[in-house]
Amino acid sequence: MNMEQERSAVLKLSVHNDAVLSEQGPHCPGSETLDIRHFGEEESIVRPAVTDMRFPEVIFPTSRVARVAGVEKVRELVVEHHRLIWHSPLQPIFGSNEKHFWKAVELTADFHAEVCGGPKLYTERKGHPHLRERHFPFTIREKDRELWLDLYIQALRNVAFPLEVAEEYWRWVESLSIRMINRRTTFAEPVRVPFSRIAEQLA
Amino acid sequence: MNMEQERSAVLKLSVHNDAVLSEQGPHCPGSETLDIRHFGEEESIVRPAVTDMRFPEVIFPTSRVARVAGVEKVRELVVEHHRLIWHSPLQPIFGSNEKHFWKAVELTADFHAEVCGGPKLYTERKGHPHLRERHFPFTIREKDRELWLDLYIQALRNVAFPLEVAEEYWRWVESLSIRMINRRTTFAEPVRVPFSRIAEQLA
Repeated sequence: MNMEQERSAVLKLSVHNDAVLSEQGPHCPGSETLDIRHFGEEESIVRPAVTDMRFPEVIFPTSRVARVAGVEKVRELVVEHHRLIWHSPLQPIFGSNEKHFWKAVELTADFHAEVCGGPKLYTERKGHPHLRERHFPFTIREKDRELWLDLYIQALRNVAFPLEVAEEYWRWVESLSIRMINRRTTFAEPVRVPFSRIAEQLA
Repeated sequence: MNMEQERSAVLKLSVHNDAVLSEQGPHCPGSETLDIRHFGEEESIVRPAVTDMRFPEVIFPTSRVARVAGVEKVRELVVEHHRLIWHSPLQPIFGSNEKHFWKAVELTADFHAEVCGGPKLYTERKGHPHLRERHFPFTIREKDRELWLDLYIQALRNVAFPLEVAEEYWRWVESLSIRMINRRTTFAEPVRVPFSRIAEQLA
């Protein structure tokens, strides 16, 4: 087998069957592009550097949320969301101790209230939330986030969260939640759920 | 609390405590940079988009590896590596059926032999390896890859892999293995292990 045949063989290995896969699902990032690099008389296939998941920008809510909805409504929303979580397949992620769970929910409610323009209860007690870091011990797949978002939609509806400020609140949690994913099970970028897609369910 | 005070409060929430964390460990990607965006009279903190893990370029071995080391030596290396894996903490990732395990190892040996310039046994039987996709069902943390690489160094030594072609073989497996990580437990980019760092252990 000469060099050209070898090169074709490896190229086939790396390219041809990707074309087959592309009918079934997404590619491994970077699998489409291959370079050839020469080392003296030898040549190598080079698969270029790529990145895994993209964390899109996170736009925090303005303080209008606390002014319009009220800090108590934000807290009520967080509690309702977690009540739904506790009775969902996500429950194991949150441990078995319900008392500890509700204590953590209170802190989360402090955090959300603060971000929405309420008093700085969270920062004063805990400092920076370090959310991704804090979630590393728990396995969070793309699908777990999707269910978490579904339960958020239910919670927004259950507490009748003011529609006027639901969009900027949603924009924050929807984008921020992507940064909690730490277990990849697919090449695909995490699903985006724009507010326009959920608005009807809230009205 | 006026708008400027609010802005400072959120900035403090997002920036000040990162500075404290930076003494303890790496930042969440993107946590250092924050923008302010205006929505009418309101303003929001914006955390820019970032990416998670970077998959560095993968330079495949040239066919010199098979010519110099021989296809049988490449196969022997893969078998030895997996013998070490079977007696390591990585074993549970590979399931409990030892017969199935060794059958899969034969396929892996086909693949490595082919990539190194040997006969196209793997491609003819299986097509594209789809390595990252094939590993999605198994939880692979950064630390698992590090142990896997340690066992590779041992295997290279145990089979007396020819030093002359060890570097280009290592360069391939070391970079390719990063693409198998699917469970993140740290912000840090995966550890790089250049051949220069292991050469002494092989000599």
